[in-house]
Amino acid sequence: MASTESQALSDMYSNWVSRMAANPDMDLDTMRDLFDGWHRVTREPGAVSYAHVDAGGVPALWAIPEGAVDDRVLLFSHGGGYVGGSSASHRKVAGHLAKAAGVRALVYDYRRVPESPHPGPLEDARRVFDWLVAQGFSAGGIATVGDSAGGALSISLPLSLRDAGTALPSAIVALSPFLDLQATGATLETNAEVDKLASKPMIEQMAGLFLGTEGSPTDPLAAPLHANPAGLPPVYISVGGAEVLLDDSQRFAKKAEAAGVDVTLEVVPEMQHVFHFLAGHAPEADQSVRNIGSWLRKHLLL
Amino acid sequence: MASTESQALSDMYSNWVSRMAANPDMDLDTMRDLFDGWHRVTREPGAVSYAHVDAGGVPALWAIPEGAVDDRVLLFSHGGGYVGGSSASHRKVAGHLAKAAGVRALVYDYRRVPESPHPGPLEDARRVFDWLVAQGFSAGGIATVGDSAGGALSISLPLSLRDAGTALPSAIVALSPFLDLQATGATLETNAEVDKLASKPMIEQMAGLFLGTEGSPTDPLAAPLHANPAGLPPVYISVGGAEVLLDDSQRFAKKAEAAGVDVTLEVVPEMQHVFHFLAGHAPEADQSVRNIGSWLRKHLLL
Repeated sequence: MASTESQALSDMYSNWVSRMAANPDMDLDTMRDLFDGWHRVTREPGAVSYAHVDAGGVPALWAIPEGAVDDRVLLFSHGGGYVGGSSASHRKVAGHLAKAAGVRALVYDYRRVPESPHPGPLEDARRVFDWLVAQGFSAGGIATVGDSAGGALSISLPLSLRDAGTALPSAIVALSPFLDLQATGATLETNAEVDKLASKPMIEQMAGLFLGTEGSPTDPLAAPLHANPAGLPPVYISVGGAEVLLDDSQRFAKKAEAAGVDVTLEVVPEMQHVFHFLAGHAPEADQSVRNIGSWLRKHLLL
Repeated sequence: MASTESQALSDMYSNWVSRMAANPDMDLDTMRDLFDGWHRVTREPGAVSYAHVDAGGVPALWAIPEGAVDDRVLLFSHGGGYVGGSSASHRKVAGHLAKAAGVRALVYDYRRVPESPHPGPLEDARRVFDWLVAQGFSAGGIATVGDSAGGALSISLPLSLRDAGTALPSAIVALSPFLDLQATGATLETNAEVDKLASKPMIEQMAGLFLGTEGSPTDPLAAPLHANPAGLPPVYISVGGAEVLLDDSQRFAKKAEAAGVDVTLEVVPEMQHVFHFLAGHAPEADQSVRNIGSWLRKHLLL
């Protein structure tokens, strides 16, 4: 049974959905403010300091756990449907994962939608990756990590590096990733009643904004479900059992496994979208953070 | 002349005011989200870690600079008209001041208005103060610090301790404090054109919500301008020259000085309300933070 503490995320999502429903013409600033409150259900990890940095032209935030090694890094792509979310909303959850892995995290503020549809966010991911390499990090010292829309970026960045013949990160962590822009997953229906945030209409709206007038919903760099995953580094996917997006994870894991990729799929029963935000508050999130930290300690090698 | 960098705060305030004007029935959650974005103009101080704590029943956040002494603390009361603001919006600015002073800061989330009118916020300030003392801090190891509405709390808490015959903090830092609930200051008129956030109607609305149905606008613990300041510890007041609330600071400083209190009044030309939020970005804020840090190093003695 879901922990009592995990209810905080369901409650926050219900509040968001009711506020969006009450204000269907919500302006962009207000919606972004709403998503920036995501951090409220995350407890400070403690013993982590933060520093702003210009990462090759992309504003970014270091999360630096005390005692972390300085040659390995989680390149963290935040979620928020490509429209919202920021280094501010995801600072603490990135800090938890960095601390669990014993490394730094870098959360970057990519250009968002609707101002910058695909491939804007991915281009910024690449800029930050190149900047890290220019700073002296080896590609193998980097893990791409992200949630929701950022979970897609955590996969599409290595895909684009592979396609370019460039050295790859050594690990991918995707939390509740948003991988299918056509909204065809079975759980969009079967979990419609239990998912407190996402829904088919919301997914379709975000996909439309992300693709803009020129994008294709089957572009593998926009919707990694359509990619050939062969050659990707080990992938850890963690997703909630109550999510409408659960099927995105399940289908991608199956496809990646068939392509010979080392895939770990963690489905945590009854959990909501990116339940990892509950780190420090709910046992399900803490357990997942520990699992991911252990996995990264094995796979994030130079 | 005001620095180019300081424009970021004016721009943010103009954005807030236009959004509030466009949505006069803005719901409380949305307004609080708006104010929680205050932190965006503040750069991470760096080398400061954070930890949530239950401070005697009041949720609070430690800001812990690397190398800070652990027996002195800034008890930080955030601003936001008693309605908004939080440990999240003020985390970084508290971190800057703590770092400049070489001590910890504790930013607490007092019960806000309209749910808890005066004396709710002050009662929570007292709870946190008592908790600090119970943790082993001496009263003299504590400085009360706050901005705007929190600037009033930074003064009313020591006033209430003095009235109760309890040991006092050794220093008070009030940033752009909101001290007159009757909105009688001359600068409410003379700075009306240049203050990008506050205005007489806004001040009156917030004062009304803060006082509720039972409060008096001349209660000295609600409006410290009406207090007898005799016996207060040294006070540092920092305020912007463009503020409608400038006169609150000038009048209180004059009254405190006449009562024999050691008062330092810093008026920084052309600066907006709580320009200290620009710490790490604008030279005026950085200079003020340095001034306050040096002053605290002299006055925050055990």
